[in-house]
Amino acid sequence: MQIAIPLFDDLTALDAIGPYEVLSRLPGAEVVFVGADARPYVSDNGMLRMHADATLDAVPAPDIVCVPGGVGVRRELDGPIVPWVRAAHASSTWTTSVCTGSLLLGAAGVLNGLRATSHWLSLERLRDYGASPTSERVVEQGGVITAAGVSSGIDMALVLVGRIAGDEVAQAIQLSIEYDPQPPYDAGSPEKAPVAAVELVRAAVAERERRASARVTA
Amino acid sequence: MQIAIPLFDDLTALDAIGPYEVLSRLPGAEVVFVGADARPYVSDNGMLRMHADATLDAVPAPDIVCVPGGVGVRRELDGPIVPWVRAAHASSTWTTSVCTGSLLLGAAGVLNGLRATSHWLSLERLRDYGASPTSERVVEQGGVITAAGVSSGIDMALVLVGRIAGDEVAQAIQLSIEYDPQPPYDAGSPEKAPVAAVELVRAAVAERERRASARVTA
Repeated sequence: MQIAIPLFDDLTALDAIGPYEVLSRLPGAEVVFVGADARPYVSDNGMLRMHADATLDAVPAPDIVCVPGGVGVRRELDGPIVPWVRAAHASSTWTTSVCTGSLLLGAAGVLNGLRATSHWLSLERLRDYGASPTSERVVEQGGVITAAGVSSGIDMALVLVGRIAGDEVAQAIQLSIEYDPQPPYDAGSPEKAPVAAVELVRAAVAERERRASARVTA
Repeated sequence: MQIAIPLFDDLTALDAIGPYEVLSRLPGAEVVFVGADARPYVSDNGMLRMHADATLDAVPAPDIVCVPGGVGVRRELDGPIVPWVRAAHASSTWTTSVCTGSLLLGAAGVLNGLRATSHWLSLERLRDYGASPTSERVVEQGGVITAAGVSSGIDMALVLVGRIAGDEVAQAIQLSIEYDPQPPYDAGSPEKAPVAAVELVRAAVAERERRASARVTA
């Protein structure tokens, strides 16, 4: 079972690494990081480089596609990942996304007429692609699964492993990564977080997008 | 504020990327991935390469040290990361670990006389370093914080951000990564998981250690 995760500059690393850490533990699975070129890609804050070991062209028909998000998505809407997703989706068993990766699925036409989710700050943008924005952590629509912001990819991947290999394997993977979450606050959604925290995030994301677009222009 | 995360071959990627994703969002923070050499390091399953942009020597005195784990730890117990941690700990404000990274803290003498945690399968090995194995998700002992297996680094980093920047910033970061965990199973600790899942994990970890040691020998 081949699982392809496309990388691009200014992606959010945990969007990719959460599902990778779960799906790579599926017996018989091979996760391959792919990119427009086989090279390192830099994360949204400029602090981490992760390698795509294969080009998109070299991995045309993975069993599972998992598309991460990040501020780089805006640029990628016009790039080679979108047509790659469209073609890969025609033969994939599962096509999935984390965070604003769902906008790339949308641009590829995968979400038309489906319920889907994204990072809470970008949820409404799904309407541009004929999808119904759905404020849930994991939204499963046949073979298409979208997950909410960043960390939700871990939950999504566990759901997916359950579908593929059954509850026992999924539980074993949850145990192997000791995923027994105990966040010190209950502020993980805009409904639960204090208003001041919501405003801090809006400002930080705007700043991150400004910086990323400055890097592109430079 | 400089945050150093050492990379090494056969590390568990999420051990490093969980805390990175949280700590990189701390205002004014710079996360730097360091290694014995400035080169890409391969994850424990051979499927991902992440770059260390600086050598250990180039980052001798970070404010925060965060050491990930993985099957590669066994080899690193005799490598350059241990003396680097020992020296860095002398001037760091916080010295932290995720998963079996705590064994590297132990080998560096950081845990002597302290309560500490690790991946549940390796907890007892902490006794070799004078630490009291403590089956909790995040164990804080003054400036030394150890976290349990793999995914627990996210919780640990949120605790740390709360200490450094206050509850509101930590809540904003939790919200920005939409960390509102909803795992589809409640199997994240050996006490909660079905016996069959526990046995699957023991077998998978033994296999992973066998493969990693075969890669070293090769």
